[in-house]
Amino acid sequence: MIDKVLETIKKYNMINNKDKIVVGVSGGPDSVCLLHILCKLRESMDLGLVAVHVNHMLRGDEASGDEAFVENLCKKLNVELVTRRIDIKKLAKERRLSLEETGRIERYRLFEEVADNFGAQRIAVAHNKNDQAETVLMNIIRGTGLDGLRGMDYIRGRIIRPLLGVERTEIENYCRIHNLNPRIDSTNLENIYTRNKIRLDLIPYIEKLFNADIVNGISKMADLIKDDVSFIESRTDEIYNKAKIKSDDKGVILDLNILKECHIAARKRIIRNSIKQIKGDIKGIATVHIDSITDLIENGKTGSMLHLPHGVRAVKSYNTLKICLHELKEEDIYFNKEVNIPGITVVDEICGSLEATLIDVSADCFSIEDFTKVPDKSKVQFFDYDRLKEGIYLRNRRDGDVFRPRNSNGTKKLKEFFIDNKIPRETRNQIPLISTRKEIVWIIGYKISDKFKVTENTKIILKLSYDNSH
Amino acid sequence: MIDKVLETIKKYNMINNKDKIVVGVSGGPDSVCLLHILCKLRESMDLGLVAVHVNHMLRGDEASGDEAFVENLCKKLNVELVTRRIDIKKLAKERRLSLEETGRIERYRLFEEVADNFGAQRIAVAHNKNDQAETVLMNIIRGTGLDGLRGMDYIRGRIIRPLLGVERTEIENYCRIHNLNPRIDSTNLENIYTRNKIRLDLIPYIEKLFNADIVNGISKMADLIKDDVSFIESRTDEIYNKAKIKSDDKGVILDLNILKECHIAARKRIIRNSIKQIKGDIKGIATVHIDSITDLIENGKTGSMLHLPHGVRAVKSYNTLKICLHELKEEDIYFNKEVNIPGITVVDEICGSLEATLIDVSADCFSIEDFTKVPDKSKVQFFDYDRLKEGIYLRNRRDGDVFRPRNSNGTKKLKEFFIDNKIPRETRNQIPLISTRKEIVWIIGYKISDKFKVTENTKIILKLSYDNSH
Repeated sequence: MIDKVLETIKKYNMINNKDKIVVGVSGGPDSVCLLHILCKLRESMDLGLVAVHVNHMLRGDEASGDEAFVENLCKKLNVELVTRRIDIKKLAKERRLSLEETGRIERYRLFEEVADNFGAQRIAVAHNKNDQAETVLMNIIRGTGLDGLRGMDYIRGRIIRPLLGVERTEIENYCRIHNLNPRIDSTNLENIYTRNKIRLDLIPYIEKLFNADIVNGISKMADLIKDDVSFIESRTDEIYNKAKIKSDDKGVILDLNILKECHIAARKRIIRNSIKQIKGDIKGIATVHIDSITDLIENGKTGSMLHLPHGVRAVKSYNTLKICLHELKEEDIYFNKEVNIPGITVVDEICGSLEATLIDVSADCFSIEDFTKVPDKSKVQFFDYDRLKEGIYLRNRRDGDVFRPRNSNGTKKLKEFFIDNKIPRETRNQIPLISTRKEIVWIIGYKISDKFKVTENTKIILKLSYDNSH
Repeated sequence: MIDKVLETIKKYNMINNKDKIVVGVSGGPDSVCLLHILCKLRESMDLGLVAVHVNHMLRGDEASGDEAFVENLCKKLNVELVTRRIDIKKLAKERRLSLEETGRIERYRLFEEVADNFGAQRIAVAHNKNDQAETVLMNIIRGTGLDGLRGMDYIRGRIIRPLLGVERTEIENYCRIHNLNPRIDSTNLENIYTRNKIRLDLIPYIEKLFNADIVNGISKMADLIKDDVSFIESRTDEIYNKAKIKSDDKGVILDLNILKECHIAARKRIIRNSIKQIKGDIKGIATVHIDSITDLIENGKTGSMLHLPHGVRAVKSYNTLKICLHELKEEDIYFNKEVNIPGITVVDEICGSLEATLIDVSADCFSIEDFTKVPDKSKVQFFDYDRLKEGIYLRNRRDGDVFRPRNSNGTKKLKEFFIDNKIPRETRNQIPLISTRKEIVWIIGYKISDKFKVTENTKIILKLSYDNSH
């Protein structure tokens, strides 16, 4: 296996002699194997290694066990170690992000910080070929374009992934042969539900029914697509640079004729790049919005302007297209989407997504209390599905909305609820609600309705997880 | 629904006023709906319609029923009809192709013929959005690159697919509302096993566990990728035309410096295009072969030559790369691959692929005779899996091979079997065999071994389907 890793390192030019490398080490099989292999290269390539371990403070003893294990391992391997305790739960709550997202942001932030402090050229992380196949399948299932199909990169900026071409079983074998005794299931935050379902259900199902070699097949596909994406990007950049007349953080002005002449795929990418430039990201901007701008370019009248989510504006002039940001007014916000059950429902206007799954109470032998004692502010809540079968909607407030707060008797006007909870007027339109055709089911992030809560009589539970890191 | 179809027709510029259109009509819901919708457009757009029905002569009465139904429908709609009976089974046998492949080739051949006779501008076929999602998923599972992810085209040459944006349920509703009473499951040849498993098992499984909207998601992904592929192709063509010094059906000579300078993704596509040009297709040429040519370009010595399957040669000179065909010698052919169970095993050297699946006899309550009375020459055969668990190989002959023909007592030298069956010496190396480490299990297309055949005692059946249309 080590030859395979060396080949990957060489092929992608990941490591040069005398490089300093920061290595993320959770204590699980992947990162332990990665550190062990890099240690083998250390002498011949004269490398400097610094291990970084993040204690996410999530599962008490287990997390301390992981930390102690990594300390011990680094001592044995004679590798300098930086450990940091980060209260991910608290941070996630403060930022209203998922544990997964918060954990990832904080980990990479620390990796970069340590890399700066040590003057490291590289940051090595331990994703393997199975992670890659799972990521790509997850993206396909959630809906994606080319960028979701390329999977994770072998190398991007300082980040390198030397194990991306190696299967999980090979890594486990390696750990066994070298008596590394890694921690099993050490802090794994990654959107545990969907990814674990893909890992434990979907992939074995495809392996059994269709193709025993599916992990390799998908990973190979991702590799092929990476090349194609990089080709498209390089060509798009050429055209973008030609088309760009002026560009700052307030707006981008593009040559209309160059946009008209170039290929539609390039045109769309240039539009996306321009929005990214003024807005910092493209969250909340969907395919349909990009399509509306290309339609403006082709068919719009001179002088006409398009209003897109998050205050993005596109203006067509005689010879130019201007893409700029406009300060968003509260009353501009409106959204209303039928919720896919099961499935994912995305609301571009507030960059949110909702995942709906069904749980059969009897079959899974849960205790009903698992579902009735969820804190009000949690973004994961459970409901009695039989009461919601007619369909539910993810939307923002409307005049006249009423609500029946959990564990209270009467109904309350939504407006009063907002006032009681000191929610400022100018943010009220951005608060996502779940509702039936008639009444509010859940004020996301605040409270669920008494009428639809899980009770002793519930047979099928509807689980809703809201995520605003979309 | 009709508005949606009209929008698709307009968006892809599928039909102009006064067009003559050939419409493939099997009698199933999709093609019946398509014909009905085109009839609605006939007057306003002044279209000429000709329906074409192929009777594949496969399921006796049912096939005749389909034919009669289509005749009746066309009479009612006042559409001219061309019907042709084609003995697909016989043709498939003669050409050693699958029923699916043979059926598709013959159908499209007839469509083109009728289109020529009637001077038609378009040929309309009735694939829908579910077909599209199934095709893309099938390609992902079998292993693919960008080209397999784009799915079927809305428009390619004369062929148009006006229903590609419409879901199967919408089509069924349309048929119900308009009392069209289509034939259900009318001649559906398409690699029935894998596609039906995807349609009936995999997609409902993903819909239930992950995303109820998966069909739309995948179809949207295919649409996005189509644009990207067309962008890549147009740019690649530009570079190819610049790099091409000379090109005829014997060889293509390319400018080495342009190849070296251009993006790796373009380089690989140009190599594939060149091989296609000299060989007519790229069957039997895999990613690994393209990679070996790019490696020759970057690292090969001047004057060195690469030998690839099917006599393809690549020669590096000072300033050029030559890709040409060399007459293949029989003794050059050698292949030996371990068979994936379950799964697909591809042999580039003879453009073949083998699909292996397992069937539990008891669970599925089959009659054992379904598996013991398969004709010798069939390319689908059944074996006793317990006798083959150690692993089997897909390979060509070697000196000393012996064989135990079904329903005979003794063993026979493979060489003698070839002589008895009048298989000319110069094709013997291309005949695929299944073998254990010790002896022959199946001479594909000729006979299976007595030792591994299904018996009353068989518990798990190994089904092997060979396909040489790969």
